[in-house]
Order: sequence, then C-alpha cells, then structure tokens
Amino acid sequence: MITAPAPGAAPAVTAVATHDVVPVQPPPRLLMGPGPITAYPSVLSAMSASLVGQFDPYMTDLMRETQELYRAVWSTTNDATLLVDGTARAGIEAALISLIRPGDVVLVPVFGRFGHLLAEIAGRAFAEVHTIEVPWGTVVPFSLIEQAARRLRPTLIAVVDGDTSTTMRQPLDELGAYCRREGILLYTDATASLGGNQFDADAWNVDAATAGLQKCLGGPSGSAPLTLSDRAADLVRGRTRIEAGIRESTDASAPDFIRSNYFDLGMLLEYWGPRRLNHHTEATSMLYAARECARVNLSEGRDAVIRRHRLHGEAMLAGLIGLGLRVFGEPQHKLNNVVAVHIPKDVSGDAVRAALLDDFGIEIGTSFGPLHGRVWRIGTMGFNARREAVMTTLIALEDVLRRLGASVPRGGGSDAADDVYADDEGADS
Amino acid sequence: MITAPAPGAAPAVTAVATHDVVPVQPPPRLLMGPGPITAYPSVLSAMSASLVGQFDPYMTDLMRETQELYRAVWSTTNDATLLVDGTARAGIEAALISLIRPGDVVLVPVFGRFGHLLAEIAGRAFAEVHTIEVPWGTVVPFSLIEQAARRLRPTLIAVVDGDTSTTMRQPLDELGAYCRREGILLYTDATASLGGNQFDADAWNVDAATAGLQKCLGGPSGSAPLTLSDRAADLVRGRTRIEAGIRESTDASAPDFIRSNYFDLGMLLEYWGPRRLNHHTEATSMLYAARECARVNLSEGRDAVIRRHRLHGEAMLAGLIGLGLRVFGEPQHKLNNVVAVHIPKDVSGDAVRAALLDDFGIEIGTSFGPLHGRVWRIGTMGFNARREAVMTTLIALEDVLRRLGASVPRGGGSDAADDVYADDEGADS
Repeated sequence: MITAPAPGAAPAVTAVATHDVVPVQPPPRLLMGPGPITAYPSVLSAMSASLVGQFDPYMTDLMRETQELYRAVWSTTNDATLLVDGTARAGIEAALISLIRPGDVVLVPVFGRFGHLLAEIAGRAFAEVHTIEVPWGTVVPFSLIEQAARRLRPTLIAVVDGDTSTTMRQPLDELGAYCRREGILLYTDATASLGGNQFDADAWNVDAATAGLQKCLGGPSGSAPLTLSDRAADLVRGRTRIEAGIRESTDASAPDFIRSNYFDLGMLLEYWGPRRLNHHTEATSMLYAARECARVNLSEGRDAVIRRHRLHGEAMLAGLIGLGLRVFGEPQHKLNNVVAVHIPKDVSGDAVRAALLDDFGIEIGTSFGPLHGRVWRIGTMGFNARREAVMTTLIALEDVLRRLGASVPRGGGSDAADDVYADDEGADS
Repeated sequence: MITAPAPGAAPAVTAVATHDVVPVQPPPRLLMGPGPITAYPSVLSAMSASLVGQFDPYMTDLMRETQELYRAVWSTTNDATLLVDGTARAGIEAALISLIRPGDVVLVPVFGRFGHLLAEIAGRAFAEVHTIEVPWGTVVPFSLIEQAARRLRPTLIAVVDGDTSTTMRQPLDELGAYCRREGILLYTDATASLGGNQFDADAWNVDAATAGLQKCLGGPSGSAPLTLSDRAADLVRGRTRIEAGIRESTDASAPDFIRSNYFDLGMLLEYWGPRRLNHHTEATSMLYAARECARVNLSEGRDAVIRRHRLHGEAMLAGLIGLGLRVFGEPQHKLNNVVAVHIPKDVSGDAVRAALLDDFGIEIGTSFGPLHGRVWRIGTMGFNARREAVMTTLIALEDVLRRLGASVPRGGGSDAADDVYADDEGADS
C-alpha cells in the first residue's frame, strides 16, 4: 500500500461553509459597455464540450483549423498565427517581449489608455521607449509619427489599432507601408477592433497583431489571437531558447533569448507548429471558444460582420444623439463598435449606470484617466451588435435619465435609431 | 454617417471554406493520462454560464468568494490568494518573476522535468540559479537541500511539489520549517498534486504556491490558482509599479519593479483586492470553471477528495502490477493521482497508446526526456478518480496488450484493483 506523505502539523484553516456556495448562477445581463460583452450563445456552448488530450489527433487538427480560421479573421497568410493562453494583455506582452531586444528603440503613438499600456510593457522589456501623445478623442497624424521615426530610427512602432478608452481608431495602412519601406517593425493591438472593423494584416503590412475574444469576436476573455509576419517570426525564432528539460542537442539557444518562458513566441511557434513541442498545457476550453468565435464570424462572413457592426454602431450613435447626448471624440475616427458620450451635467453618471443595471440588467461603462466619470462608453459588438440590444438600451437609458431628472426627448433615442435601420433597409432594397 | 477607415488594398486572403467548419464536437475520451483529464461535468457546465461585467457586483462577489474557496483548497489564511489568467505555467512564472530580483540566488532541487522548468524560468528572471539534481524516480533528500542552502545562502528555494514527469512527490514540511527559520522564501509548484494529495500551505510554511485546474481539481487548463504568504506578498508589493495610464500620484513606483506587466503580482493583488485596480479583463468563464473546481472539491470535502485519490490511485497501481507491469520510481514518494510503469519490452508503447485511444477512447501518456518512450503514465484524478474509470482502463489495457502480443494474466488488472476496493470497503464497515 502506498501511503501519503506525512501530513505535517494540523492545518490552521477550517473548511469554508460550502453549504452556502451554490453553482455559478450569474444574473442575466445585456452587456452594452466597452467589453467584455454578452458572448454568442454558441461560444458559451462550445466551452462546455468535453476535453480531449493535448496530443489527441482531434486536438492537433482543431489547433491547425483554428489557426486557419484566424488567418481569415486577420486577413493574412501568416504561417505564424496562433492563440496565446491568457487575456488580450497576455497577447500584447507576448508580442512585445518577443520582438523587443533590450535597448531597442520603440516608438509608441499614444491616443488613449492602451497606448500607455504598450509603452509600459515595452519599457518593462528594457526598450528605450519614446511616445507621441495627442489629446484623447483624436488620433495621431501620420506626419507626426513619420517625423519622430525619422529622428529616432526605432526598430519597432507599437500602436493601438482601436483604443476603447477613447473609442478612437488609428489609421494603419499608410503607417504600415512606411514601416515596411523603412525596415521598421509594426505591432498593433487590435483587441477592441478586430472583427467589427476592417482589418487587413497583410494589405496593411502589419508585422505583429494581437487581440482578445471579448469584444467584436463575441467570446469571453482568456484567449489572445496573435499573428506575426514572416519577418517578425524570423526575428522571434532567432531569439528562441528551447527550455531545459526538453531541449535537444540540436536546438539553438540564442544569447539574446526572450526573457519570458510563457511568452516566448519562439517556443509557442514550435508548440503550434508541426514539431508540437511541449510547452504549456493548452487551455482547451478557451481554444474551443476561440475557434467558435472565428467560426461564427466567418460563417456570417467577415465583411458582413463588419457591416453589421457599422450599422448597429451608427444606430446607437444616432440614438444617443437623439437623446440629446453629446458624442466624445472625432467622429471620423470612431470605432464601429463603441461610442463615448459626455455625461450630462444634470445627472450622476454612476447613478445612471447603477439604475440601468438594477432596473434593466443593462451594463454600460465609463472610462479611464482623464475621461473617468466624464463619459459613458456604450458598445454594440459581437452578439450585441443587433437591433433589439440597441433599441432596448436606448429606451432604458431614456427612462433612467428621465427618472433621475434629466431633460430628454421622449422616444428621441429609439426614433433616431429606427431611422438608421429604415435607411439601411431602404438602401438594401 | 460614420464611415469605416479606408480599407487599403484588397486583401490577398480569400475566405476560408467555412461550410466545412462545424461546431466543436470532440470525440468522447476517458482521459487517464497525467493530465489534462476529463473534467467534472459541472465544471464544463459552469463555463457555459452567461458573462457579466468586470465590475458587476456579482462578479466582484464571485471573485472574493473564489479567493475564499481557494484559501480552503490551499489550507491557508493567506489574504494574497487569487487566480492568474493563464495555464499552470503562467502561475509559475508570475510567482517566480515577482519574487526574484535580478541577481538573487535561487536554489532549485530538480527531480524531473518540471524542476528544470522552475530553474529555466528563474534563470530568465535573471536569478543566479543553482540546481541539485537527483535521478528521476527519486526525490531530493532534505539533507542535500539544507547543505546546499547553507553554502549558497539563497533568497528563494523553488521546488516542485509533485512532478508528473516522474510521478514523484517531494516532501515539503521539513523544508518549509527550515526555510522559515533561515529567512529563505519557499516556492512550490503544486500543479500536479493540489486537490489529490495532502497540501497544507500554512502548516508547511510555504511562501508561494501555484497550480492549475487540469489535474486533481478536475477542470480545464487555463486558470492558475496562486497563494502568497504575507511575507511573500510584502516583497511583491514592494516591487509594484502601477502602470502608466491608470497610475495615481500617490502610487509608489519601485526602482526594482517587476519586469512583466501581465505577471506583476503587485498589480494583480490590487486587481483582486478592495481597490479593484483595472489590469487585465478577467477571463470570466475560466473564473467560473476555477470556482466550480473548488466548490466541487470542498463540497465533497477536501480530505475526502484526497482519500478518494489515494484509494483509486492504489487500485490503479495494484491493477497495473496485477497485469505484470513494473512500476517506475520510489513507491513511498509516488503521487496519489498518477503512476508510471515501464513499457514492456515485447510491445511498442506508442502502438498500445494508439490502440487504447482508437478502440476504447482511452488516453494514457508517456513521459519526457529520459523517460520518453520508456514509461507509460496513467492518471486517476479529479472526475476520473473513480472506480469505473480505473476498472475500464485496466481491462482495456489488458485487451490491447494481449492483442499486441504481450503475455498478460487474464483479469490480472481488474482482480487486483477489485481487491483494493474490497479491502477499502472492509476497512470502512
């Protein structure tokens, strides 16, 4: 008989009162904030599928297929397309820490909170980081970036594609072409935008891009799609050190190897590639979710989903204007899937959000830093880029604003949104 | 009307043939390898629960409750008990990178692949790493560790609690007491052991421990429970740098701050703590899974679950011996939940594993490095620490061995396992 190790001293901790602990029963919510949003029902179902082993033929096929689906989502032929097991931020760190060598000059155009995050992560990776900051609600003019790049000669420009903190979207195509010409790598964080806005990794010459599932892709947070151009993948592969314990004598061990094991994209490429090098244990249920997000997107049609996000985003925008709210930021740079409006002076922003949640189960958000408590952010993305979600949110917001004492045109939101939908139907017929 | 950004050149990528892509439909598998294993059905169900917002009162309550549940699982009163969003390896890296300052002396007793991993991650964190290696199948005698520690004066000893690669379990109680006396921090990776073997973080004076869900806790990979003693949490807090973009003027920014943003346990403590500092977007579905894993464990009873793992582990061990297989490693140090047996000379290990999978849907594993292709590893953990799983695996293995030409006693596995169960019932009555 095998006996357990000696138990040591009696634990000081008594059992928790487990009779009080019931299975997860979340309240029904219509998540109309900047994300995470209500997931597609089929994505939630996919996560309850039974597990298979990490090297089961079904699993390796599913991983390959998921890579292929995400190539279509990213609009790329990049072989190096995979998922990082973690939230969107894990994807960002994996890309930056794998691409940046200590001392590299990295240029970060900043137009919201997540630009600061890129600068932050690049700094922790020992880059020499330079930022260009513009007022929140605008984007960074290409001429400013070009001017700074000419002076600083960065090896990498890291920029957010769509910054949910301000709802603004940075144009990337001209920048991508410039970076390619100049031999500068271009990384972008497409967490807030991918799936709901045009994104063409190859056509835009993007070298590295990462995202999350919890915005327009309509899934839960916890898996980060990532794609690398061949030249980015070559750089990463040149910095790989296969870990001790499974390293073979033929494996190179680069002197300037990546200083994270978990985020070593060189090892992740070997894990997702034909060698199937053992690294982490893939988060199987999140893989199922990520695959289903892509499948839903591509089944509807990548461009059709973008059009849907644009339509419902426009309806929400029109509805909010119809309620007398003032939109924040430059309209020509707004993301399709989220809008920020100034909180009216005559109500408490938090009281309105609380009433929406308590009385209607609807969540909207505020923002960070200089915008905290100054704007509401309202999203229409993934599963919630749909008419009932938009109309329900608008009439609920109208009701709450009225009850909390704001002056608001009766039906001003739903009428204006309805007009957008009518125009769209007219245009289609 | 808001218009989308200029689409750039037409993408070179055409849509994937989505009509071929069906929703996830994994084949039914009985996962009897070293993990991941078949998840508890209620854990899979929990993941299909609808999402709520990150700062929804339900969410913050659930996070607090999950922390409390994991305190009971870890047998600790540590305030700093939380989940890292990623696989078990993410938890390891978060702990090590947050606890190790560049230049710190770190001692790693190695008795299998995952000891090498700890050394690897510590090295990437710029530690001065020293290892003590013993032959696979044994554990590291305390006297050897003490001797090395006296000579090297490490700030941290990092050791695997149970190394699945060899199925061995390192005793920690004496080591923990020693470390506490000497002011050395003790980190342990309990991925392979937690839930199925005695683990008493407080009684053993463990300063930092991490795990995953995919072994004895009976969930999918993708969330890493972590706990820090107060002194470990103090060290981490002293190295925190709240990130730019949300940093307030009163926030300290330590000069020797943690060089990862995602794994900065100082920020994670603020995220899980009363301040609810915005960091990543919590992987809500994985939180649901992690909470349900703990709930299932504590509802059955922490000690009852350990006893169940011991019983079914003994039955499997006896059954494998009954089939004439030779057990690998020192029996007195074997984990309850996994056993390694030498692959008999007269069969191909891979052919046996393939036949088990193809004919019975049962997965067992081999191992890494020096044991690759030399042993099979067979697990009995979480949901699969149960009689039918053990008995089915034993008769299927018998059948496959016989068909592939090995000499094997008829019913030798199931009879021996049945004897263990009968003894156990006799002991209970």
